[in-house]
Amino acid sequence: MRTVWWSKGRVKLIDQTKLPFKTEILEFRDYRKLARAIKGMRLRGAPAIGVATALGIALGINYSKASSYEKLSQELDRIIKTFQRTRPTAVNLFWACRRMREKFQENKDRSLKEIKRILIQEAKRIVQEDIDCCRRIGKYGASLIKKGSSILTHCNAGALATAGYGTALGVIKRAHEEGKRVKVFVDETRPRLQGARLTTWELKKAKIPFTLITDNMAGYFMKKKKVDLVIVGADRIARNGDVANKIGTYSLAVLAKEHKVPFYVACPTSTIDLRLSSGNRIPIEERDIREVTHIGNRPLVPKGTKIANPAFDVTPNKLVKAIITEKRIARRPYRQSLKKLFI
Amino acid sequence: MRTVWWSKGRVKLIDQTKLPFKTEILEFRDYRKLARAIKGMRLRGAPAIGVATALGIALGINYSKASSYEKLSQELDRIIKTFQRTRPTAVNLFWACRRMREKFQENKDRSLKEIKRILIQEAKRIVQEDIDCCRRIGKYGASLIKKGSSILTHCNAGALATAGYGTALGVIKRAHEEGKRVKVFVDETRPRLQGARLTTWELKKAKIPFTLITDNMAGYFMKKKKVDLVIVGADRIARNGDVANKIGTYSLAVLAKEHKVPFYVACPTSTIDLRLSSGNRIPIEERDIREVTHIGNRPLVPKGTKIANPAFDVTPNKLVKAIITEKRIARRPYRQSLKKLFI
Repeated sequence: MRTVWWSKGRVKLIDQTKLPFKTEILEFRDYRKLARAIKGMRLRGAPAIGVATALGIALGINYSKASSYEKLSQELDRIIKTFQRTRPTAVNLFWACRRMREKFQENKDRSLKEIKRILIQEAKRIVQEDIDCCRRIGKYGASLIKKGSSILTHCNAGALATAGYGTALGVIKRAHEEGKRVKVFVDETRPRLQGARLTTWELKKAKIPFTLITDNMAGYFMKKKKVDLVIVGADRIARNGDVANKIGTYSLAVLAKEHKVPFYVACPTSTIDLRLSSGNRIPIEERDIREVTHIGNRPLVPKGTKIANPAFDVTPNKLVKAIITEKRIARRPYRQSLKKLFI
Repeated sequence: MRTVWWSKGRVKLIDQTKLPFKTEILEFRDYRKLARAIKGMRLRGAPAIGVATALGIALGINYSKASSYEKLSQELDRIIKTFQRTRPTAVNLFWACRRMREKFQENKDRSLKEIKRILIQEAKRIVQEDIDCCRRIGKYGASLIKKGSSILTHCNAGALATAGYGTALGVIKRAHEEGKRVKVFVDETRPRLQGARLTTWELKKAKIPFTLITDNMAGYFMKKKKVDLVIVGADRIARNGDVANKIGTYSLAVLAKEHKVPFYVACPTSTIDLRLSSGNRIPIEERDIREVTHIGNRPLVPKGTKIANPAFDVTPNKLVKAIITEKRIARRPYRQSLKKLFI
């Protein structure tokens, strides 16, 4: 299963707002429209946003009419700015921009045609690397999971949140492939219901047994000792191991602590932002209140109701038992272990 | 504002499934239909269920064709059984049945016509007592609330959950009436959205400022020190102070503990079940999975998705700072303080 990919001069992606009822493929030739699709969450999940941004930069450069390296470089700035305005919390987006810019600069002595080809190649490489990362995360993570475990996950950190396979769901899939007979509690994940719509869809495809619950049931099942571990993805991790992830993750981490349930985070190292000293500095996106007030076109509350809609929260490092990356499993103290991942 | 009342040989109630968009009054002459309306949650909230049951028993007896006290007594058994099958967790229902049965037995020497009149009177008295209870709960509870407090509440423990005024919302309303300038965070309360639909509706009417949030945002706002206290209602409280209330209450109580935010419960003493030694013995209603899979007629997930839907959870006494009743504020150890309420 692929989430976002390059195909014959186009970027294609599965429209996740249509899942699970329709599998619709969107096709982009204009990078601005792709950026709008990211903002509108047709594709979401920090690693997937990173990958889509790399592909989008390649797309924008490929169709640029710029006639010199300088002009193409200005075009690149515009393209990057467009993507950076889409989703402020997912750091993989900024990582992808940096990496594409470096590749652009490394090749400044080549012809424009060659630069375009190289950037497309680089974006495709990022797609493949992301899938490989997920596979390795899955392998490391599965080593932490005992046979017969019942695993709770929040939001969607699956194939749909990456170029393929998934981070937290990658770990669960790998454990399943190893015959560990895991079962999953899926938080529905209000307001956008990524758990109910996307994670259930992926688990069904993978034939992994699961039970869908509303977010406020997690404590109930932990108290009944029905949850052996929690595993989630991440949108950004600060140098000290504080984890920004989908709203509700922090509450789960507190509940996990209360019930002595291990709480794991799975993500590629591109999600780790060593420039930020702590989670307090991670920008938290406030999204349209319509996500809370409506399901589809159906209003749940009258117009004018005051709403808060932070899309993410920050889980302090002390609540995180381990961070599972493609390089290795990092443990406390994270200030050291995360830094070492980049050496 | 009235939630459920007696009017000219009928029981009337506001159809809460239609709120906040329509205020529709339902009218019942047949007690069986009223019981079905309770099961279908056209009216909900433990005290309101108790009051509606008392009115429903009066209704059933009033229209009974029984020709002797013995036959009317058998009819009473049937009526009571019908109501007891509606909502197993709300103990006020069983309390109302006991009280109506006692009144029935006390008057066994009177004519059937007189008994019918007396039961209607008793049910009306229960309506009025419930409203008075709420007013007293409000007064006691408001004494715990400092000026300018930000209060988080879950589900709806308002006028709509009682005969009028409310328990947890009664406390908030009273604090507001005393000029304490409180503001409220309202959990939307999945799956049935009683917070989003009912609590916001009541707070708007009362002109109390509020912000609606999804259930999984509560931890986020507590961590940001935006919540000064939590106050909720209850569906049943065991002898030791364990509190059954709407699913998600337990998670809130754990979050409150983590953030040193006081967690209060407000309810009439009819919610306290001294016969149960602990919360483990409170029956937890599992409701139709359609509540989770659909919003109105709109499906959120494909058919066949495995769902759990416990309607309540149990918060252990150690997480409850105080239980506010119409008699006084009970504090730990609850085994003593709750017992004393009935002396």
